[in-house]
Amino acid sequence: MEIRVGQAFDAHRFETAADGGLAMPDPSHPLMLATLAIPDAPRLVGHSDGDVAAHALTDALLGAAGLGDLGSNFGVDRPEYAGASGRVFLESAQQMLSANGWRVINGGVQVIGQIPRLAPYYDAASESLSNIIQAPITFSATTSDGMGFTGRKEGLAALGICLLEKV
Amino acid sequence: MEIRVGQAFDAHRFETAADGGLAMPDPSHPLMLATLAIPDAPRLVGHSDGDVAAHALTDALLGAAGLGDLGSNFGVDRPEYAGASGRVFLESAQQMLSANGWRVINGGVQVIGQIPRLAPYYDAASESLSNIIQAPITFSATTSDGMGFTGRKEGLAALGICLLEKV
Amino acid sequence: MEIRVGQAFDAHRFETAADGGLAMPDPSHPLMLATLAIPDAPRLVGHSDGDVAAHALTDALLGAAGLGDLGSNFGVDRPEYAGASGRVFLESAQQMLSANGWRVINGGVQVIGQIPRLAPYYDAASESLSNIIQAPITFSATTSDGMGFTGRKEGLAALGICLLEKV
Repeated sequence: MEIRVGQAFDAHRFETAADGGLAMPDPSHPLMLATLAIPDAPRLVGHSDGDVAAHALTDALLGAAGLGDLGSNFGVDRPEYAGASGRVFLESAQQMLSANGWRVINGGVQVIGQIPRLAPYYDAASESLSNIIQAPITFSATTSDGMGFTGRKEGLAALGICLLEKV
Repeated sequence: MEIRVGQAFDAHRFETAADGGLAMPDPSHPLMLATLAIPDAPRLVGHSDGDVAAHALTDALLGAAGLGDLGSNFGVDRPEYAGASGRVFLESAQQMLSANGWRVINGGVQVIGQIPRLAPYYDAASESLSNIIQAPITFSATTSDGMGFTGRKEGLAALGICLLEKV
Repeated sequence: MEIRVGQAFDAHRFETAADGGLAMPDPSHPLMLATLAIPDAPRLVGHSDGDVAAHALTDALLGAAGLGDLGSNFGVDRPEYAGASGRVFLESAQQMLSANGWRVINGGVQVIGQIPRLAPYYDAASESLSNIIQAPITFSATTSDGMGFTGRKEGLAALGICLLEKV
């Protein structure tokens, strides 16, 4: 049994309004998290759709398999990935793992942030990630108790982890 | 051999005094960390006893087993857990894991904080956590070198990790 | 198959100039990261050479094996380790693991920081760490999107992870 562990962190800023405060939630540009659209929160900004949960899990998967990371595979020098969804990165990582003989045993993502309340999305997020990765992936969230940049609602952070097995 | 990995972060604030500064250590309300009472430090505040080390490990265990997290199992809508000790959460998680056929292979918790100095408590904390979880659990601590919210002594953070095996 | 997982965080400050700003990069005292000398960045300061990547991986390895941590093995009360390189800690940890019957299955380190750009060093860092640990170790980096202490360029953080097997 040949196994590998991988882990990754990611963080993105919430969109800001003209006055520098948090942007109002915009249902036509919802927060994207773990591939889900979450309408009642400002979106995260980035080269892609800012999905920190998908990014942290993708980086954990690629790192475990020794296949680089998000930047080296889908970075700013690859214009076809500009604005890409977290789902695209996860699907691409899953295909790269398969092509290299790796199967995901399990994984998880924990989002760290003060807003929005994510408990109502745990089941749907876990199901969506598990379907893409074809393995049990758990999604959860916590706060930093009002401290630090997530406590100040500047953005969200995420920690991803996974275990792989050579097929 | 069916295995699972899990990981979690948690953070809680130190109690503050009336002037907004850190509360003086109060031996009758000690800092609770990894189930130990640590008298020479301000306590952490929270819905429970604020034991970030126990919480991070509990969340790692529950996440690895796909059994939700602290909030979904013991959250603020469960008044019987108000003020609950970190030990109660760990014992409950251990029972849930057992009931679902999971055995803990090993685990660890690392506390991140500027104060107090935790090296004198490594052995007792590791022993207490290992006894509750019935597996080798290592406890350690580090600082963020004076940076960020833990560097400013606003509170403590913790990272938990674990490996499970289906019995 | 007896396996163990371990994880650790570390953070160190960049050297500051007399005016409190970041020190200018000094090729004779380069940033040390994952055992590599990186000339175009201020160095990290610490009791040792400040190599957060090596420290996080060392702590993950020691923790997984239940052998303490950097502080308890090579701490400030051990003057022979003053100014020690991250390589020395990794080599010492690798020897301790071997002596205790542990082989590293794989591992990884992710550095979190705004500067310098580390993508050009991924391959060399992975190769150096893998050679020392005699197992596949992946090195990567990300940012906190300008937020928090790494976003303010106060220093760098790192997360290490590993999987061990009893020989």
